[in-house]
Amino acid sequence: MIKNSTINHQLNHRTIRAFKSKTLTKEQLNILYSVASHTPTSMFMQQMSIMHITDPDKRTAIREVSKQPYVGANGDLFIFLVDLYRNQQIRHQKGKDDGRLHTADIFFQGVDDAIMAAQNVIVAAESMDLGVVPLGSIKNDPQKLIDILDLPKMTFPVLGLQIGIPDQQPQLKPRLPLKFTTFDNSYPRDVNIDDLKDYDQIVTTYYDLRDANRRVDSFTNQIAGPKLDQHYTKRDEIMKVLHQQGLCTDENIG
Amino acid sequence: MIKNSTINHQLNHRTIRAFKSKTLTKEQLNILYSVASHTPTSMFMQQMSIMHITDPDKRTAIREVSKQPYVGANGDLFIFLVDLYRNQQIRHQKGKDDGRLHTADIFFQGVDDAIMAAQNVIVAAESMDLGVVPLGSIKNDPQKLIDILDLPKMTFPVLGLQIGIPDQQPQLKPRLPLKFTTFDNSYPRDVNIDDLKDYDQIVTTYYDLRDANRRVDSFTNQIAGPKLDQHYTKRDEIMKVLHQQGLCTDENIG
Repeated sequence: MIKNSTINHQLNHRTIRAFKSKTLTKEQLNILYSVASHTPTSMFMQQMSIMHITDPDKRTAIREVSKQPYVGANGDLFIFLVDLYRNQQIRHQKGKDDGRLHTADIFFQGVDDAIMAAQNVIVAAESMDLGVVPLGSIKNDPQKLIDILDLPKMTFPVLGLQIGIPDQQPQLKPRLPLKFTTFDNSYPRDVNIDDLKDYDQIVTTYYDLRDANRRVDSFTNQIAGPKLDQHYTKRDEIMKVLHQQGLCTDENIG
Repeated sequence: MIKNSTINHQLNHRTIRAFKSKTLTKEQLNILYSVASHTPTSMFMQQMSIMHITDPDKRTAIREVSKQPYVGANGDLFIFLVDLYRNQQIRHQKGKDDGRLHTADIFFQGVDDAIMAAQNVIVAAESMDLGVVPLGSIKNDPQKLIDILDLPKMTFPVLGLQIGIPDQQPQLKPRLPLKFTTFDNSYPRDVNIDDLKDYDQIVTTYYDLRDANRRVDSFTNQIAGPKLDQHYTKRDEIMKVLHQQGLCTDENIG
């Protein structure tokens, strides 16, 4: 049996949405930043930056974008940026044009950098028995977030993290059995919801602490339900906002 | 001092591009898959799948796309997919339409799922003293890779990983000092390459084992150089290929 402390923590991951009031120490911050910095980076371009949001007005404004009451409450708040601005400035000061910096390819490489750094920080934080919630909700209104943070063009706030000492103990949320998500050499097109009956049953035993009076709906009901139904949302402005930021502007190539 | 074994491994990360011939054991595979499965997932949609490529012809074909001689040589090869196909099938079998599955928003949430899972697997593998190379090079020809893997629509191969017992010992590759990548509350627009002189000097002391006869160029020279200069590449077909896969199709909304 080869599980070690790292893997045990990873298999025990639970998203934490309530934290104690104590903020992270300088030492903890430095460790998390160093881990982020040592993440793999595509073509060594290092197109990721992290913003630590301690200003109370900014935290409140970000909570309003996220529409989640725990955002900007207790816990240190970080915004991970795809950052192509730094490399753009470097190229300009070396007398070069923007080159490939406006392409979808280079944008996606920056996304890889930022998202991998965020997950690396999650693992480091959880190894120190801190709790973390990833915040995709910062993309509920991408332009608003850019305005709150006064970000330059060529950057994009792709994911938030809130990190602190846990003040709740959620259950482990059951994942799809591996036979549905891991494949050898070929992709099995025959997905049958009858095969998901057992898993659906297991999911309904899970209590989400955000609404602890009732169990969650089955997995297939969730997927077939409102979160993926067609509806209006400012989240759909993401491509327009990216283009306004000078990012990912070449979708008509090829 | 609060560093632990997890963090020590993370800070010691080096990309490994040469592996011994022994493949991963069933136990190692199961642990890596379980770690991937326990990664945070956006809105619990679990839009990530992993393909393990053992077929020699497929490994060769993927090496030809990557143009890297170590791809599909020793080491277990994995392709991480953004997988919206599974949820599309679930919705259809529940009598629902595709809903938001073709939006950029939901595609990007799948990207978050897949990339976070890949990084989580990297950490787990390295904690077992295995070596890993992330393969962004699988996107050198996105349509070709989809054809090699015979992938259905609504999926996209976003990142590869090759994992095995290391057969080389690269140096630690120096990262940008944290003052250039981590910010409190506001983004500092004044990037000055003079401030990067010391870092540039440190980078030039690094030997890349892919070309061990010479040191690498400075960071600012790399950024101002060919890898970001305008040039033709099939990598720029990514948006067209995504659209052909039925993904990210709404860039004209809003």
